[in-house]
Amino acid sequence: MSKKTTGREVKAFAPATVANLGLGFDILGLALVGPGDTVTARLVREKGVRMGSITGDGGVLPNDAGANTAGIAAAATLRRTGIKEGIELDLEKGLPIGSGLGSSAASAAAAAWAVNRLLGSPLRRVDLVEPCVEAEEAVSGRHADNVAPALLGGLILVQSLDPPDLVRLPVPEGLSVVVVTPDFVLNTRDSRSVLPESVPLKKVVRSTANIAAMVSACYSGDMALLARCVTDEIVTPARAPLIPGCGEVMDAALNAGALGSNISGAGPSVFALCRSPISAARAADAMKAAFAEAGLESTALISPADCPGARST
Amino acid sequence: MSKKTTGREVKAFAPATVANLGLGFDILGLALVGPGDTVTARLVREKGVRMGSITGDGGVLPNDAGANTAGIAAAATLRRTGIKEGIELDLEKGLPIGSGLGSSAASAAAAAWAVNRLLGSPLRRVDLVEPCVEAEEAVSGRHADNVAPALLGGLILVQSLDPPDLVRLPVPEGLSVVVVTPDFVLNTRDSRSVLPESVPLKKVVRSTANIAAMVSACYSGDMALLARCVTDEIVTPARAPLIPGCGEVMDAALNAGALGSNISGAGPSVFALCRSPISAARAADAMKAAFAEAGLESTALISPADCPGARST
Repeated sequence: MSKKTTGREVKAFAPATVANLGLGFDILGLALVGPGDTVTARLVREKGVRMGSITGDGGVLPNDAGANTAGIAAAATLRRTGIKEGIELDLEKGLPIGSGLGSSAASAAAAAWAVNRLLGSPLRRVDLVEPCVEAEEAVSGRHADNVAPALLGGLILVQSLDPPDLVRLPVPEGLSVVVVTPDFVLNTRDSRSVLPESVPLKKVVRSTANIAAMVSACYSGDMALLARCVTDEIVTPARAPLIPGCGEVMDAALNAGALGSNISGAGPSVFALCRSPISAARAADAMKAAFAEAGLESTALISPADCPGARST
Repeated sequence: MSKKTTGREVKAFAPATVANLGLGFDILGLALVGPGDTVTARLVREKGVRMGSITGDGGVLPNDAGANTAGIAAAATLRRTGIKEGIELDLEKGLPIGSGLGSSAASAAAAAWAVNRLLGSPLRRVDLVEPCVEAEEAVSGRHADNVAPALLGGLILVQSLDPPDLVRLPVPEGLSVVVVTPDFVLNTRDSRSVLPESVPLKKVVRSTANIAAMVSACYSGDMALLARCVTDEIVTPARAPLIPGCGEVMDAALNAGALGSNISGAGPSVFALCRSPISAARAADAMKAAFAEAGLESTALISPADCPGARST
């Protein structure tokens, strides 16, 4: 703790998230169990937000609070409360950067949560979404499909971004997620640069049919329907070539019994939705083997599909 | 009854339908109460399908069974049963042609239902979708968003067309539909010719968000969410200019308290979704007045959103 602190501090955690889920580009995301980022926010005498220590990032993150999603989200949260305070943030990265696990969103969500708590929770949880979107915009484009589930937990539909209109979708009983992260860095900005500018109407029709069916399957618990609709013809064909072995990894997941498999966020992580934790374990092994075939080591995370979001620790 | 008949006949009815619902181009449709087409099918000695009488069409429909959706659907249904019979169809049009109320689909659905019943119901109700899609394809393009609700009733999502993968969506309690049909003919083929070939990715994102939210609102009964998502930036801007007063009619519906309003099918009918029959009556008056301002007389139909499909009468 810095000598200039007043002694009050809050430590908060926000989880990894899978955005897009293949078919829900920029509008769907879900929170994962396990890894995430931790931010400690403390009151200091000097007004504004600044970074204290940053650990677990391999030294790559900027120490300038204005260039870091934790710092930007903290400042935007502070501004939104209207309270004039000085806040110092320690950031412990638990998520790899550029992995498609919502690393920048987890830092932002943990920082926004910590700052709001530190100030006595003047804002509702959902009010923290906009400050976090502001942070995301600074590093990887204006989207809420990571920050919304990182804050709120569960499976979230971003019906609208400005202003945020978020819908929590139910998750079928037992639905499990496996996310396999290869030892390969893919910058979100690069991954966004290959996106198509426009989409043929026929693909739009199939895409809207798939997302509509997926939402229906979430409510009805129809896993067979889920398996018929978790597919994407718009973004995945453009991004898959950026990730060695991507197609093979998705095929391996399906062959191992997964309901669907696609790129997690902007990649290079690949996720699969599975009907049970046992099925997810089987898919994880197959997906890791397929990445190994492509010459990449990888780690697998198995998670329920309905996990909590940001919280104090 | 023709002298060549064997005496057995079945009379069937299929209702009007609202396709697209604005935001679900080619994938959403719902059945209406009230008007529809009626087909009487009878066994005759000469093999194959032929038309008997056609009434209510103002003399515009072809008497050739191969050029008429009732005849095409009947022949496709007969073929699918594998039964060699001769069938004669009488068609009573209760729906105006080229109105956006699924007129061609109602003829096809009534014919398919009548033929299947006449043959002892060898096919399931859902098996009649493909024969009806074949008929639709011949007159207005390959789509199932009219024939599926005309056959199955209710609100139907066409998740996939080949093969048909249909999902019945629940309808929020009290949800009512008003459809206002102006005295103005718009051919479906013309209406399809103005469709954009491709759609900017940003619009695709908003479109998928809207349809996902609509499906969620159907399950949760969240009428306020429904009001925020029944909108379309893809097809409506291209088609609305073909219909005099279209924009004003949709605005009038919203100003009168409708949750959403858009073009019914390929138009020129305009529908509105309302939270109650009373709200629908208010919207209907406002919409008719707006069409009158544009110089068009119109008729309004008010219906629950969850109505039965094809049936014997």
